[in-house]
Amino acid sequence: MKIAVLGGDGFVGWPTALHLSAQGHDIHIIDNLSRRWIDTELGVQSLTPMDSIQERTRIWLSETGRRIHFHLIDIARDYEILKSWIADEKPDAIIHFAEQRAAPYSMKTDRHKVYTVNNNVNATHNVLSALTETGVDAHLVHLGTMGVYGYSTVGAAIPEGYLPVRLDRMDGGEAEQEILYPTRPGSVYHMTKSLDQILFQFYAQNDGLRITDLHQGIVWGTHTDQTRRHEQLINRFDYDGDYGTVLNRFLIQAAIGHPLTVHGTGGQTRAFIHIQDSVRCVELALQNAPQKGDRVRIYNQMTETHRVRDLANLIAKLTGAEIAWLPNPRKEAAENDLVVKNDQFLALGLDPIRLQDGLLAEIMDVSRKYAHRVDRSRIPSVSAWTRDIEPTLERDPEGRALRSVS
Amino acid sequence: MKIAVLGGDGFVGWPTALHLSAQGHDIHIIDNLSRRWIDTELGVQSLTPMDSIQERTRIWLSETGRRIHFHLIDIARDYEILKSWIADEKPDAIIHFAEQRAAPYSMKTDRHKVYTVNNNVNATHNVLSALTETGVDAHLVHLGTMGVYGYSTVGAAIPEGYLPVRLDRMDGGEAEQEILYPTRPGSVYHMTKSLDQILFQFYAQNDGLRITDLHQGIVWGTHTDQTRRHEQLINRFDYDGDYGTVLNRFLIQAAIGHPLTVHGTGGQTRAFIHIQDSVRCVELALQNAPQKGDRVRIYNQMTETHRVRDLANLIAKLTGAEIAWLPNPRKEAAENDLVVKNDQFLALGLDPIRLQDGLLAEIMDVSRKYAHRVDRSRIPSVSAWTRDIEPTLERDPEGRALRSVS
Repeated sequence: MKIAVLGGDGFVGWPTALHLSAQGHDIHIIDNLSRRWIDTELGVQSLTPMDSIQERTRIWLSETGRRIHFHLIDIARDYEILKSWIADEKPDAIIHFAEQRAAPYSMKTDRHKVYTVNNNVNATHNVLSALTETGVDAHLVHLGTMGVYGYSTVGAAIPEGYLPVRLDRMDGGEAEQEILYPTRPGSVYHMTKSLDQILFQFYAQNDGLRITDLHQGIVWGTHTDQTRRHEQLINRFDYDGDYGTVLNRFLIQAAIGHPLTVHGTGGQTRAFIHIQDSVRCVELALQNAPQKGDRVRIYNQMTETHRVRDLANLIAKLTGAEIAWLPNPRKEAAENDLVVKNDQFLALGLDPIRLQDGLLAEIMDVSRKYAHRVDRSRIPSVSAWTRDIEPTLERDPEGRALRSVS
Repeated sequence: MKIAVLGGDGFVGWPTALHLSAQGHDIHIIDNLSRRWIDTELGVQSLTPMDSIQERTRIWLSETGRRIHFHLIDIARDYEILKSWIADEKPDAIIHFAEQRAAPYSMKTDRHKVYTVNNNVNATHNVLSALTETGVDAHLVHLGTMGVYGYSTVGAAIPEGYLPVRLDRMDGGEAEQEILYPTRPGSVYHMTKSLDQILFQFYAQNDGLRITDLHQGIVWGTHTDQTRRHEQLINRFDYDGDYGTVLNRFLIQAAIGHPLTVHGTGGQTRAFIHIQDSVRCVELALQNAPQKGDRVRIYNQMTETHRVRDLANLIAKLTGAEIAWLPNPRKEAAENDLVVKNDQFLALGLDPIRLQDGLLAEIMDVSRKYAHRVDRSRIPSVSAWTRDIEPTLERDPEGRALRSVS
């Protein structure tokens, strides 16, 4: 298949591109490299030394003989360029990672909120409109998030995308209708993924676009079978307060002797998936494309759930790290349960990498190896969710937020 | 109250500004005048001769002694200017009409789809972000649409915004949760209003913004008590295939001896409200603001429902007009029922203008009076909803779509 990977230079995009290239697909990465620009903006860098996308693809070619094409296109801003590319290249599938994907970054300032909404909504809608206009019947696979549902405490399992509801009819009877499982996003970033759902529903219904939406959990781990093949194919690893995700942050904190930063009670329960399983799920989704006229196919792309404090305790036990209990800069429930159905991927043959099996390797192979590259000042998570929370952040003499304090 | 009317130069925005000014409020119209630019783009103009916004406000001042301020701001593009204005002026309320509001225009070409999504989502989100950032506690009243719900045929009444659903708990019990009544928009325009709902839900929940969303039916009529006060205060009246709404189009078609254009079976049932009731509802919403921390208050702003063919038959009977049965350029159910709850506005004292009482006046006062200004070539509705429908449009030798044919 000819496959476009939008955002193919990113954390999940890059290993996905490699995975699918290794299977013989013709891969075209389309990326505006915004994630590299944001590194520059924030003054952070990947823990792992990451080459340019051009260099990475050159190495991949020399290692495997397979060419991955790279196209510098800003799909949110340059609609006409995107449309021309799709019309000319007629991809069989498009995998869409091209959105700003950090909740703390999306809540940093109003500028970041406005950027995230503008970028993410236009990126998704431009792809949908270009597919409709060109008539190219590519299967669109989108990376969504479990986070669109927020974290309810009613104790019901989250199904894969849809919920049957009963409506009272005027004639006294009841009608059953299947609706998108209701969302309640907790950040501007998560909100944009909730908006994406509505866009997908419309274009599948009106124009018969074939769409799969992957509601992904928090990705942990760094390596896949392909990124391991050469030092310069290594994946990015974010540990900073904005882009670093909870488990990877704990790992690097443990590696450098920094206390594990738990916000609030650590009672937040989250869904997780290993990066290797994530790229495998994308592959499974590609192999099981919906037909024209089908509703959007929605998968919960996660393999296990954990409470944040349980993860901290686990890593503390494995490494001897201490735990720092900090106030929570997010507005969210202090404690929540989370039960998620993921029957579809299991039925398609996904054999999950368990956190307890992969953790130690991750600590040895990545965190300790690159610990010397850590800038400790970038570890604190200082994007406050609201104006009320903002004053609780400790600041340095120049007024830069340092960390949250009680 | 100091009230900002975003989009206050438009069809409902202008009479709302006048109505609230007449009641003694300090009115600031903020508008980018895009609707006037779209008239130029489409080569159409309001049936009623409409002066510039500057001239209109000058007339209003000389007639009433009340000043309506006008600020030329593009709220979708110029976030910083909007934010500064809100921070400096600290309005008590903001009424938000500033979105591209025609479904056929939003489906015209891919450029129009991209424009509508970009403009509407950014406009709404910029207002929400600016309110949050400045901390100005203005009550935001937004004009939404009944059309977000699509046109289901299950025969259930559409409640005012929320639906209780039962979820199966893991422990075998049932939990009840109230969700936004599920939407199923049928055009890109309606889709953007569905996106707005998610934006409102988030900012009400995360930042305590006080928001009212008015799910409006199709507005008919032209005059309000204020626009009648002077010829140059007249409201706009759209009859063209993109911006003209069904009832107003029938009226002008009848006035010029053009057959009433019914698309499909005319079995579509729609909700309606007179322009005078529309501005009255906005007033009622302003008087009943939610408190900080409340969920978004949602009203169904409509007063009666009618089947399109029944309206055509009614006007044919009143005027002797013929009916032309044309193929439908929209993708929608041929026939649908529609039952809408509007108890909240009735409880607040709304006394609706009935269609059967106001129709004849509208025909005499507006349609016949200005019939000489009609460009008949602009009457056909030629924006096709899908690529499959597009080839059914009849074209002139230059390839311009003329009308839909079977």
